[in-house]
Amino acid sequence: MIDKNTNLLVVSAHAADFVWRAGGTIAKYAKHGANVTLVILSYGARGESNDLWKTEGQTLENVKAIRKSEIEEATKCLGISNYEIWDFQDYHMELNEERMERLVRKIREVKPHHILSHGPTNAFNPDHESVYKYVFDASVLSTSSGVVLEGTTVAKQARLFGFEPHQSEISNFKPEVIIDITETFEQKQAAMNCFKAQPHLIEYYALKASLRGNHARRCSGNNEYKYAEAFSRSFPYVGGEFV
Amino acid sequence: MIDKNTNLLVVSAHAADFVWRAGGTIAKYAKHGANVTLVILSYGARGESNDLWKTEGQTLENVKAIRKSEIEEATKCLGISNYEIWDFQDYHMELNEERMERLVRKIREVKPHHILSHGPTNAFNPDHESVYKYVFDASVLSTSSGVVLEGTTVAKQARLFGFEPHQSEISNFKPEVIIDITETFEQKQAAMNCFKAQPHLIEYYALKASLRGNHARRCSGNNEYKYAEAFSRSFPYVGGEFV
Amino acid sequence: MIDKNTNLLVVSAHAADFVWRAGGTIAKYAKHGANVTLVILSYGARGESNDLWKTEGQTLENVKAIRKSEIEEATKCLGISNYEIWDFQDYHMELNEERMERLVRKIREVKPHHILSHGPTNAFNPDHESVYKYVFDASVLSTSSGVVLEGTTVAKQARLFGFEPHQSEISNFKPEVIIDITETFEQKQAAMNCFKAQPHLIEYYALKASLRGNHARRCSGNNEYKYAEAFSRSFPYVGGEFV
Amino acid sequence: MIDKNTNLLVVSAHAADFVWRAGGTIAKYAKHGANVTLVILSYGARGESNDLWKTEGQTLENVKAIRKSEIEEATKCLGISNYEIWDFQDYHMELNEERMERLVRKIREVKPHHILSHGPTNAFNPDHESVYKYVFDASVLSTSSGVVLEGTTVAKQARLFGFEPHQSEISNFKPEVIIDITETFEQKQAAMNCFKAQPHLIEYYALKASLRGNHARRCSGNNEYKYAEAFSRSFPYVGGEFV
Amino acid sequence: MIDKNTNLLVVSAHAADFVWRAGGTIAKYAKHGANVTLVILSYGARGESNDLWKTEGQTLENVKAIRKSEIEEATKCLGISNYEIWDFQDYHMELNEERMERLVRKIREVKPHHILSHGPTNAFNPDHESVYKYVFDASVLSTSSGVVLEGTTVAKQARLFGFEPHQSEISNFKPEVIIDITETFEQKQAAMNCFKAQPHLIEYYALKASLRGNHARRCSGNNEYKYAEAFSRSFPYVGGEFV
Amino acid sequence: MIDKNTNLLVVSAHAADFVWRAGGTIAKYAKHGANVTLVILSYGARGESNDLWKTEGQTLENVKAIRKSEIEEATKCLGISNYEIWDFQDYHMELNEERMERLVRKIREVKPHHILSHGPTNAFNPDHESVYKYVFDASVLSTSSGVVLEGTTVAKQARLFGFEPHQSEISNFKPEVIIDITETFEQKQAAMNCFKAQPHLIEYYALKASLRGNHARRCSGNNEYKYAEAFSRSFPYVGGEFV
Repeated sequence: MIDKNTNLLVVSAHAADFVWRAGGTIAKYAKHGANVTLVILSYGARGESNDLWKTEGQTLENVKAIRKSEIEEATKCLGISNYEIWDFQDYHMELNEERMERLVRKIREVKPHHILSHGPTNAFNPDHESVYKYVFDASVLSTSSGVVLEGTTVAKQARLFGFEPHQSEISNFKPEVIIDITETFEQKQAAMNCFKAQPHLIEYYALKASLRGNHARRCSGNNEYKYAEAFSRSFPYVGGEFV
Repeated sequence: MIDKNTNLLVVSAHAADFVWRAGGTIAKYAKHGANVTLVILSYGARGESNDLWKTEGQTLENVKAIRKSEIEEATKCLGISNYEIWDFQDYHMELNEERMERLVRKIREVKPHHILSHGPTNAFNPDHESVYKYVFDASVLSTSSGVVLEGTTVAKQARLFGFEPHQSEISNFKPEVIIDITETFEQKQAAMNCFKAQPHLIEYYALKASLRGNHARRCSGNNEYKYAEAFSRSFPYVGGEFV
Repeated sequence: MIDKNTNLLVVSAHAADFVWRAGGTIAKYAKHGANVTLVILSYGARGESNDLWKTEGQTLENVKAIRKSEIEEATKCLGISNYEIWDFQDYHMELNEERMERLVRKIREVKPHHILSHGPTNAFNPDHESVYKYVFDASVLSTSSGVVLEGTTVAKQARLFGFEPHQSEISNFKPEVIIDITETFEQKQAAMNCFKAQPHLIEYYALKASLRGNHARRCSGNNEYKYAEAFSRSFPYVGGEFV
Repeated sequence: MIDKNTNLLVVSAHAADFVWRAGGTIAKYAKHGANVTLVILSYGARGESNDLWKTEGQTLENVKAIRKSEIEEATKCLGISNYEIWDFQDYHMELNEERMERLVRKIREVKPHHILSHGPTNAFNPDHESVYKYVFDASVLSTSSGVVLEGTTVAKQARLFGFEPHQSEISNFKPEVIIDITETFEQKQAAMNCFKAQPHLIEYYALKASLRGNHARRCSGNNEYKYAEAFSRSFPYVGGEFV
Repeated sequence: MIDKNTNLLVVSAHAADFVWRAGGTIAKYAKHGANVTLVILSYGARGESNDLWKTEGQTLENVKAIRKSEIEEATKCLGISNYEIWDFQDYHMELNEERMERLVRKIREVKPHHILSHGPTNAFNPDHESVYKYVFDASVLSTSSGVVLEGTTVAKQARLFGFEPHQSEISNFKPEVIIDITETFEQKQAAMNCFKAQPHLIEYYALKASLRGNHARRCSGNNEYKYAEAFSRSFPYVGGEFV
Repeated sequence: MIDKNTNLLVVSAHAADFVWRAGGTIAKYAKHGANVTLVILSYGARGESNDLWKTEGQTLENVKAIRKSEIEEATKCLGISNYEIWDFQDYHMELNEERMERLVRKIREVKPHHILSHGPTNAFNPDHESVYKYVFDASVLSTSSGVVLEGTTVAKQARLFGFEPHQSEISNFKPEVIIDITETFEQKQAAMNCFKAQPHLIEYYALKASLRGNHARRCSGNNEYKYAEAFSRSFPYVGGEFV
């Protein structure tokens, strides 16, 4: 059903966020020929590479190099050929005016129908909350003619979808959109396996996919859904009929 | 886009609720050939016919008769051929076990993909809140094999959508689903005009349709939306792609 | 400032609720000549007379008799001459259709500008929540011409204000309206003292009046407020200027 | 750590609720010698026995008989010797004054320190919401001397904990209390296996226990937690130190 | 009813915000002789002048010049003689310590009873949220003796009222205060017409005024209210009687 | 019951916050031999020393000197020997990357089981909200191996508890944890008396301790609780049994 002309922009705060939370959905868009663009803001070297730092004499450069090759592998698993790593510092990630302009430019270049990124609240992860605001504001600025950036033309307001945070309830997450990923779950599994240093997350997000599959079946009465991913949305659904 | 095989069940607490809040959407489903079934629970004779009672010597029977003919006219305007009036007392509407069974039967008969009725909260209108719970529970009971009702077979869980209440914010309403009704707005206007005794509502819901049209354009970037209706939903969207 | 033509209807679930939560405000309305009508739904004999039941051989009749004389005393302290005790059973209080009609009649008789009663949520006190819904619905039904009750004429929609519950935060109470009771605090104190069997509440609600006085000063910058009572409200303020 | 003198009362709306949502915790209390009392309000014959009704010619009596033997087996797995089945009708469960009195009596008999039952909201399951209110109100009435029931003495206010509902986020569930069930997870697994007709739930609640184990580790930094169950609570924690 | 001695300070993020959201109310205060001071923080040249940028070769200076003359016209329509444009950059508006001091000085100079500005949440408009926090904090700092600013004396805590955002429900807006603007609606209409480049907003906010008029009538029972504006408030109402 | 090996870190935005909101609890931990570390971020010279500024010719240095000696006295009353004053500017308090690192270092040094500081929302006090985020983020960063700070080793995730704000309800505060301070209330009283310039707060927080004592009794049925302090918590309780 996914239209080949769909432009999907994914903005991931750290190296692996896009895999844990949306790997199946991204793979599905890629598989069906949509234009997927992935921006990874940081290697997550400071905040999300705990196991790598257990190695004696570990350095920031080395952690980044490892994360870089893991990202490369994982994007292959998911069928993403178009990605960029912006190498911001994480934990804390500072998102200033220059970085805002960079993302506005990217949105105007990609002209995404959907932007997939972090949601507004995320217990235990302050970077994710900053990135939510960064992406939200950039999406609004990208539509405004008065925000003049040479070489760009304004975009239409994209739909914004938010990743499920690690601990959903205490992050006030509501699953507003549940996407069936049965056909790409194996790709997600493979992509998760690229991040060898985080075995507990590999298991955790496989469980989550099963759980959301259960919810998908229960809410829809459609028993073909085995695995799913859940997302929040920033704006109401607007369209021609009930979905 | 609306599929002819779609079964839409509308449950309206009072005579005109389905017109003010969803007339354009219902007309659209009817126009595109979907199977629309409308259940009107009461004539709204006690709670929503204020102007009729200003007539000297007014009686309950007469109010009901007037409401009945208005309903008949309005359904014609919207293209609804299949409707029933259950004639419950309103203000308060008591919804007992027998009435629950009646609605479960109706759901199992219609096998609706979507049920459109009142939402969970409605300042100033206690019947609407009761009807929400009534419809919600009936939709769940209709899916349960153990709720044995002779002559019926269980239904799949329907999607539940909630009407916009009159004062949206103080009723905690969020517009989660906005349906473009540009192509049927005139039919809605005509249907509203059938309820002559409530001119202030006719004007009010025309304004609302304009406002929601504005929101539809702003949220989607699609400038062809002129008029729209907003709804809440009881369960997450589940499907194969972002919408 | 209180207008003599103001009609204030107070509906108290149990014997002493109106004193603990609103005694100062009621006394103020009475003192300034407003028309105060108090309806006490029950003696609170089952749920709010714990200390009286410690007496060996205590009976329901005797508890009611004691509560009755306490009410009489307390209303005198507050300057309330017009009150009724409807003697419903408490803990649980059942509020059926007949009782609804009785309250609708009372509202149509009093034509209150303000109705003061319990708020929507009240941890530890299920009767208070039932009474909130009872009063709310009665206030709406009282305005509807179709709710025909011989000998009555419809009322305008009254403003509804809700008592502060005992444990405010876990009852989701927000102090939306804070009334200065400095001039009648002594009367409230006296009225509270009538309920001798509940010394812990006498102390507690004196503390509360001080606390709310502090909030009143902090929110307004007016240092003359010493004691205050806080209320929720069911509808927005509507008027000609900011207050 | 669990004190042998702890009285735990569990109130389960349907046959298996106490197993899916709290089996590990209950087993732990039983294992450490606490006094566990289990009240099962219904067999869940109408609402939670879907697979059993697929058998040609199935009857209500037969479904109840099967459920009864499953309950017997499951309680053995969890080490619960003290349980009662009250055999109310489910889907809908009506909870009248007489049934209220019955539960108040039970609470006064057990004098529970903790009552474990359903939480306030539960999408897709109206019985669970009714039972929450039923248990909450009964716990309050049980402490009131004026609620005179021959042969009983008043109880202290019990702590109330709420089961995790099936779809936590859309039921507004927050995991306020997470109990480590690593030592009794196998017993829970065994008890779940007794309900053979619901294999999807057996898998689902094993996944949930893993997920909550992950949360338990992340929130506490204690890596010995493998499996856990999550609960809501109705009142604040009160005690002598931070926990 | 509006007292001539009332000091009203309005803080508008962009050129026209004060007109769309509060033009009728401001005009009313001006008409009744109150002291109205208007601070416009930016021309809204980048974020709220989309149509002007459609002109070939448009420049920032020119957009500002157009906005300036529109502001001048609009203030005349509303009867505001006392206004300042601070010419901050918009989209994003940065509000640093120096700008904070400037607003604190202004508040101490004006000594407002009421400050009217943006509310806490505003979907699609990040500047409005920043301005809310800016004004809130400035209002608090202005009351603190330790915030020493030469040539100023501390102010009393002002009441803070928030504009209705464009899409109220998804911005979590609640209409807590509804002001009747029937007598100044024509002035508002005239002021809106000054912003010729935004015809869709002119129509939209006229509809809104009608809608809020409907709510004002419904909540108060006063049928003389034709047009109204809605606001949020940051603190409870504090006073001597119910309003 | 308090374990001598407990490490408690208290972070107070201004000079006296730790006394008003948590003095009894801190004194209790100190009395029972726990390791209490107190960090006071500012003297509160600008925002919370209003009365001192009424003295003619007052200076910032002098206000700080007075606050310093009050702090010294108060810590003695509470039995706190280990405290630091970081002397940040207050009203507004800017919390940059360097200050973040300082707090991360402190947390890694103290290795607190519990961190006690401000909660997420605080009407009228913007510094408190900033400090909440500062402490929360520092607690997360302190656990991450990739946040390399020479001379430190990572900490386990501490439990985070939030002070009760001055106006609890409008700050969305929920009392999730209520600590009995009956045995140290006199010490708290003494410590409060050290801040002579704020007599209204001394009275206010004594009242609060009584009120929370009432709630503690009501929620627990334990009548030995006379005085208590209430806190919010940032994460669920995790443990081996219900508490």
